[in-house]
Amino acid sequence: AIFEAVTTHFTSNSENKQLDQKLAGHQVLITAGPTREPLDPVRYLTNRSSGKMGYAIAEAAQKMGADVVLVSGPTNLDCPDQISCIRVETAEEMLKAVSAEASKSTIFISAAAVADYRLKEVATKKMKKQGSSLHLELEQNPDILATTSKANPDLFTVGFAAETNDVIEYAMGKLKRKQLNMIVANQVGGGKGFDKDSNQVDILTDGGDHISLPETSKQQLAFDILDVVCQFYSKDQSNKS
Amino acid sequence: AIFEAVTTHFTSNSENKQLDQKLAGHQVLITAGPTREPLDPVRYLTNRSSGKMGYAIAEAAQKMGADVVLVSGPTNLDCPDQISCIRVETAEEMLKAVSAEASKSTIFISAAAVADYRLKEVATKKMKKQGSSLHLELEQNPDILATTSKANPDLFTVGFAAETNDVIEYAMGKLKRKQLNMIVANQVGGGKGFDKDSNQVDILTDGGDHISLPETSKQQLAFDILDVVCQFYSKDQSNKS
Repeated sequence: AIFEAVTTHFTSNSENKQLDQKLAGHQVLITAGPTREPLDPVRYLTNRSSGKMGYAIAEAAQKMGADVVLVSGPTNLDCPDQISCIRVETAEEMLKAVSAEASKSTIFISAAAVADYRLKEVATKKMKKQGSSLHLELEQNPDILATTSKANPDLFTVGFAAETNDVIEYAMGKLKRKQLNMIVANQVGGGKGFDKDSNQVDILTDGGDHISLPETSKQQLAFDILDVVCQFYSKDQSNKS
Repeated sequence: AIFEAVTTHFTSNSENKQLDQKLAGHQVLITAGPTREPLDPVRYLTNRSSGKMGYAIAEAAQKMGADVVLVSGPTNLDCPDQISCIRVETAEEMLKAVSAEASKSTIFISAAAVADYRLKEVATKKMKKQGSSLHLELEQNPDILATTSKANPDLFTVGFAAETNDVIEYAMGKLKRKQLNMIVANQVGGGKGFDKDSNQVDILTDGGDHISLPETSKQQLAFDILDVVCQFYSKDQSNKS
């Protein structure tokens, strides 16, 4: 009976399950953090993404046996062990790095909070105060997720939707519009999401599934999300064959 | 002879000189870091200031005997020991904190890189992508340095001018326009200044003095700047009496 209890303990131990090498043989490409869009050499537009969720997914994927390439915007986080990190600043630089890695990857997880817009003209010198008001002209950044998904139809592509409101509705629209296999939806603002250590997410798939994961640390959530990714990746592969 | 050498060593030791309690009895008010000006709950406008120079000055002033109040924008730095830290995010919040402390202080050192402009209207929900271009309407932030200097004519006020070009010329203009006692001018961009560990500065005073300090660590530079502040503070006091 003691032996049985020990066996049960070990097989139900989540740390143990996580260390199943479910992602062995995979190259997983992950983006994390914000991007910075410069106005001039000292000023820039950015967002509150800390990179914690993307870095946690990168570490978890590596522990699950994957070769991991992490393309990261500016964060305060160190590159995790045994992961290949590429540091970028702007959305344009991130797209270049992602495009170079995507064709070698089987799974792409876009956890970065890429700036939708950049300045139309970036000043080469620090701008001087010019009067009581200032107009900034912005133009759309390239859509890294949609571009990569469309250019690599065999890549299993996972997006994130961080929203302050109508989270599921926006996430569903993004999943379809950007031709993703899966989207991870989470609430931000009001003390949730960005720059926090825990998170609660809903996962939607292109097959119409909706999985609600319980609130937990970003470290544990990373393993939980990757478990769902593995499950639907296999389903996707068997549908294709 | 050995005794003499030891004495000379100790009296010329800069650490020793710095620990002269030259600022005993002073309340020194210091601002540091960037400000963040929100567009919506997740996006904001900011700049590359790391806060290192302001924090180094705060630590040095405390070691020189001052009571130090540090009003800091968002940085990755911890509040130094025995210093009273007030964390703020926007220029408006920084002005409020500075105004409350200025009348109790004898010296004000404005090392923060305050955003000149803020959004005219801040969205309460995360903005959605709205088309190929976007116009942002900005309005001027309050000028913390000029406001504080004019409201507290007895406060010895020290500004910073971080510029990519024509540094001395801009610094001189700022010194006069904002009625400062002293301005610390330094070059930023091209690998210099912001987010670096060392710096080279020029100090200009309202009496027309120009002191060039050699490039050194921000820690050492903090003591060097405060030595100059002490010297001209005394001159300023004896001119008034």
